[in-house]
Amino acid sequence: MENKTQIQLEKLLQALVKHDTKEIDDIYEHVQTIDLAQEIEELEDNQLEYLCNHIDDEKLAEILEESDEELQADIIDCLHNQRILRLFNFIPKDTIVDILGELPIGKRKQLITLMKADDQRVIEQLLGYEDDSAGGLMTTEYIALNAQLTVVNALMKIKEIGPKTEVIETIFVLNHKKQLIGTADLRDILVSEENTTLEDIMDDQVIYVYPETDQEEVSLLVSKYDLTTIPVVSKTKAMLGIITVDDIIDVIQEEHTEDMLQMHGVSKEESLDSTLFESIKMRLPWLIVNLVTAFLASFTVKMFESTIEQIVALSATMTIVTGMGGNAGSQTLSIMIRSIALGEVHFKDCLPALIKEIFLGVINGFVTGAITGVIVYILYGNFYLGIIICIAMVGNLVVSGFFGFLIPVALKAVHADPALASSIFLTTATDVLGFFIFLELANIFLPVLL
Amino acid sequence: MENKTQIQLEKLLQALVKHDTKEIDDIYEHVQTIDLAQEIEELEDNQLEYLCNHIDDEKLAEILEESDEELQADIIDCLHNQRILRLFNFIPKDTIVDILGELPIGKRKQLITLMKADDQRVIEQLLGYEDDSAGGLMTTEYIALNAQLTVVNALMKIKEIGPKTEVIETIFVLNHKKQLIGTADLRDILVSEENTTLEDIMDDQVIYVYPETDQEEVSLLVSKYDLTTIPVVSKTKAMLGIITVDDIIDVIQEEHTEDMLQMHGVSKEESLDSTLFESIKMRLPWLIVNLVTAFLASFTVKMFESTIEQIVALSATMTIVTGMGGNAGSQTLSIMIRSIALGEVHFKDCLPALIKEIFLGVINGFVTGAITGVIVYILYGNFYLGIIICIAMVGNLVVSGFFGFLIPVALKAVHADPALASSIFLTTATDVLGFFIFLELANIFLPVLL
Repeated sequence: MENKTQIQLEKLLQALVKHDTKEIDDIYEHVQTIDLAQEIEELEDNQLEYLCNHIDDEKLAEILEESDEELQADIIDCLHNQRILRLFNFIPKDTIVDILGELPIGKRKQLITLMKADDQRVIEQLLGYEDDSAGGLMTTEYIALNAQLTVVNALMKIKEIGPKTEVIETIFVLNHKKQLIGTADLRDILVSEENTTLEDIMDDQVIYVYPETDQEEVSLLVSKYDLTTIPVVSKTKAMLGIITVDDIIDVIQEEHTEDMLQMHGVSKEESLDSTLFESIKMRLPWLIVNLVTAFLASFTVKMFESTIEQIVALSATMTIVTGMGGNAGSQTLSIMIRSIALGEVHFKDCLPALIKEIFLGVINGFVTGAITGVIVYILYGNFYLGIIICIAMVGNLVVSGFFGFLIPVALKAVHADPALASSIFLTTATDVLGFFIFLELANIFLPVLL
Repeated sequence: MENKTQIQLEKLLQALVKHDTKEIDDIYEHVQTIDLAQEIEELEDNQLEYLCNHIDDEKLAEILEESDEELQADIIDCLHNQRILRLFNFIPKDTIVDILGELPIGKRKQLITLMKADDQRVIEQLLGYEDDSAGGLMTTEYIALNAQLTVVNALMKIKEIGPKTEVIETIFVLNHKKQLIGTADLRDILVSEENTTLEDIMDDQVIYVYPETDQEEVSLLVSKYDLTTIPVVSKTKAMLGIITVDDIIDVIQEEHTEDMLQMHGVSKEESLDSTLFESIKMRLPWLIVNLVTAFLASFTVKMFESTIEQIVALSATMTIVTGMGGNAGSQTLSIMIRSIALGEVHFKDCLPALIKEIFLGVINGFVTGAITGVIVYILYGNFYLGIIICIAMVGNLVVSGFFGFLIPVALKAVHADPALASSIFLTTATDVLGFFIFLELANIFLPVLL
């Protein structure tokens, strides 16, 4: 890997000072815009302002498009409204909406009012959709042509509209009511006889979504059917926009990050860059929730204080049972969360899978319990303590399989994210029940243990 | 969402029996091949054999391409070698290699020997790459043209080769030494003057990878630069193949699944469909590893048996400290694993982030420790026990932040997957050190505790 686009931002700034447009073009041509945008993040305010004021519209628009939210806001701050609108001419509508969405409402309204009526309508419509829905992801830069058009005419249209669209490989085919009825592949258009119509060569099996469709569902479709673009239609099948695969990749990564973090009670907004204060604000509340659950486990142990007083060995061994339960439960949990995210879990198939988890608990519990029992017997010379820990292990691994399976399914059933702090709930269940099973068994067998 | 391609596999089988080719074509046209493939999985062996023997080559090839590994093997079993080779004409090389890779070596060699010399060479080369490297993902169906070609001639070539390639939107531009020097966008080719050469319109900033590049790195590049295809080149920049975005989506999902599962010691091969025996085989080994670590924690407690004997309240409260440590550590861990997977972690920036985690541990530990201390004081009426638990909480949350940060970084540094059973290692650290800190403090303060 050697994609070293050594960025000479320094050089670019110097070229700007010297108004050396040839040098500017030259530098710009030899970097990837996203790398440039990342370098620009490091600039001082006055340097950024100088850059914004001296670079041409098209280049600045490209930088704006590739910038993260923070830099976008900083760049917008440097510019007057008319310039912003000029930049918007070079930027796809979905990105414009994302930029506008981050601005203060007053500024956003100002900019929209200044737009052409057509753009105003599209932007306001797009702004109306939820961020995490198909409508919030879609853009309006696509090619849709009438089914009766011949391929020659279609090709002319494509040449005309092409440079302004995000995708040209797939042409969307509409009937006379402007409803989406198929897709035509550009390579078929290129090789067909001149007077073939789009209807003749189109594929009428179109996978589409509605603007309200959740982004997770959209990403499942794109990944299942290997799409590079998916159309968004209204209830009457009028074409509203397209979603491109690069946005879907972002969605997939975002959803995965969310799953992994939420599972452990971490907010998805936190990253390595978060400040100490932000991290505290996001993690502490979950730790306090966890504190409540930790006390539940502690109360369970406290209930058996008189038993522990008589056999102190219990306090050292009981942690083995609960520790194993927690880990076995995590195994089940992570498989369930993944399967739910990939759309593989259907409620009607749940029972056999749950029964399998319980059997798994029995078998894995018996194997690990037997090993533990033998070691404990050797360490403490107490045969019954070995038996008890083995039974408790089986019991706790069944409990952990049961809850590791049911917590995510239950969260899904109430339409909460299955990953949402599942780990914390699971730990509570395995700790409380794990301690209870073990200490209650010890209590029952107390006469033979002493 | 209404992409209900109601598949009438039943109907298809009947049409095959009646040799009603029109009906077959009609059914086939109205389903998505992948949905069809999923239905076919449910067929009995003799039905599958009938289907394979009576459907035409192109349709069967499409089904083969969309099938999962198991169905692919079953279909191949139904066919004689010559037919398999005929099907391969309709399938991209990367998929052929995947299919061959799953076959017994004898059968694989047989098939390769029967291929044309050209295909043999390509297939053998592709088979030589690791599955999870760029070489293992790439395919050889792309369009590469000489830089000196005019756009008219390029367009003629594209029309000719286009139908056999996976991507036509991007044309790869080679110099006279066949080295990759740029990419040309099909829309630029369509709108350029007839005698413009590809060199004039190409973008010479190509992001490329080598065949050895790890698939995770490839997916980071594709997602960072919003690519739909990425070329694979040799050390001398000769073009070897391309990787398409649909394969990258599979990689991203695979890596995420791996991360989430490995974190908890679950094998990536396990899914809800795994049999009980498969699940045992995959989970039990990790549980046994975990058993060893659970005993470490237990030994730590055992060391302090005489202290616990004197103050039994310790055995109920010590679980709060270790439970909190485990959860706080998981928070750090999940953020680190995600950041490493997204390529956001650079070793030189590690120190400040580690220091932040330690401060986080101090602050979160102090808040939760103070709450716990007060409650424990109220419950047991022992002021010093409250103080000790507060100090132990701070200590354990610092330990958990430290190890939650360092375990994934250390695994990364030795080129192991950072997600690999990180949770189990972390739990060991927080349990052992958590128990130790708390019980050692109790030991020191024993005179005032009694």
